[in-house]
Amino acid sequence: MTDTRPAIRVSEIFGPTIQGEGVLIGLPTVFIRTGGCDYRCSWCDSLHAVDNQFRHEWKMMPVDAVWQSVVALSGARPVMVSLSGGNPAIQPFGGLIERGHAEGYRFALETQASVAKDWFAELDVLVLSPKPPSSEMRTDWVAFEACIEAAREKPQVVLKLVIFDESDYAFAKDAAARFPSLPVYLQPGNHTPPRRGEEDAAVDLAGIMRRMEWLIEKVTQDRWFEARVLPQLHVLLWGNKRAV
Amino acid sequence: MTDTRPAIRVSEIFGPTIQGEGVLIGLPTVFIRTGGCDYRCSWCDSLHAVDNQFRHEWKMMPVDAVWQSVVALSGARPVMVSLSGGNPAIQPFGGLIERGHAEGYRFALETQASVAKDWFAELDVLVLSPKPPSSEMRTDWVAFEACIEAAREKPQVVLKLVIFDESDYAFAKDAAARFPSLPVYLQPGNHTPPRRGEEDAAVDLAGIMRRMEWLIEKVTQDRWFEARVLPQLHVLLWGNKRAV
Repeated sequence: MTDTRPAIRVSEIFGPTIQGEGVLIGLPTVFIRTGGCDYRCSWCDSLHAVDNQFRHEWKMMPVDAVWQSVVALSGARPVMVSLSGGNPAIQPFGGLIERGHAEGYRFALETQASVAKDWFAELDVLVLSPKPPSSEMRTDWVAFEACIEAAREKPQVVLKLVIFDESDYAFAKDAAARFPSLPVYLQPGNHTPPRRGEEDAAVDLAGIMRRMEWLIEKVTQDRWFEARVLPQLHVLLWGNKRAV
Repeated sequence: MTDTRPAIRVSEIFGPTIQGEGVLIGLPTVFIRTGGCDYRCSWCDSLHAVDNQFRHEWKMMPVDAVWQSVVALSGARPVMVSLSGGNPAIQPFGGLIERGHAEGYRFALETQASVAKDWFAELDVLVLSPKPPSSEMRTDWVAFEACIEAAREKPQVVLKLVIFDESDYAFAKDAAARFPSLPVYLQPGNHTPPRRGEEDAAVDLAGIMRRMEWLIEKVTQDRWFEARVLPQLHVLLWGNKRAV
């Protein structure tokens, strides 16, 4: 019998480990990182899942095979599954979510919100992460709002904003003002993202901490008391290593 | 006119800075740290708010004065207020919460849950932190449950467990099993708590990170997928410095 269901382009599946950032920070999670992205952020920290030069590392996996990987990693015990990338929104995740939900698993998707899908409404958590000016990408706010509409108020929807500098911060404030009902998570950017073959290189922890402090000061001085400021815990713990 | 309202025994009021731990991690917060505690945890990281030898640093402040401090620190802009200690449950916070709510402020209380108060039901967040064996304290589960009852399902109630070793971890699992409906936050203990006059001493960041890794491994190997594992961000950022 041929499996006619759509296949998912996978860069890596790993975990469970804790979610390192954002609204689910600290929660044990299995990660499905998809290959391919419609963006090319200047500071991308997951180029191995974005750039076509890594395409030979990606695998087209039937939904069944992806699901079996998740079950194996989690010992068949329901866990949060994070769909990330790349842009996971360009993969067909509807069937996997349906299958996982039947077994008690939960699903969070993180996307720049450039592509809306009907199955967003089936998610448990939808993290919308518009890219700030330092990324050299431009947010299409019409597409962005289509993502919020696609969610149909079913999953928890939050904004996550990566901030490298003052103009990113201004962008974050503007984005938050556009969607006042969405909880906001701010995150200092990783200014020492991994380079090919140098994933074991030490990250600049002191620099990350200084950027955290700067951001905390900005937020508290501005009295932006609704925004949460969080680091990338996995970078603090494991640097730029993959699959931890 | 004499203010007949009860006074609050205050060790320090500071902020806004981000909440460093637990369910509100990353959120700008004004902290009211009260003086006095019915516990003496072996590893207490806030002895200056617990031990009677610091009593001369504490101030009995009328609710009005406490409220004015919070307003001044927050620039009269509503913010999360964390009531901590010591054990803040032994202070009369009902009036302050009522006053703050009228202005849009929110209130979180963190307590070992040894003393229940009616005003727990007025809180927005109630963090119950039963102390594990390494503290050398014993949890009175009857008193603990009285705290949950006092909350009358009005605030968000969560469990926070500090973990130093295997027996603390076993205690955490037991506590979570007693209250399966409460979200659980696990936190590696600060094994280099501040000592008098040495608040500027460097903390053992590498050691904290190793303890985080150990705890993440425990939780994921046990498939305890509901528990969140979070460090104390303020310790990573500022060591044992006070009032940051």
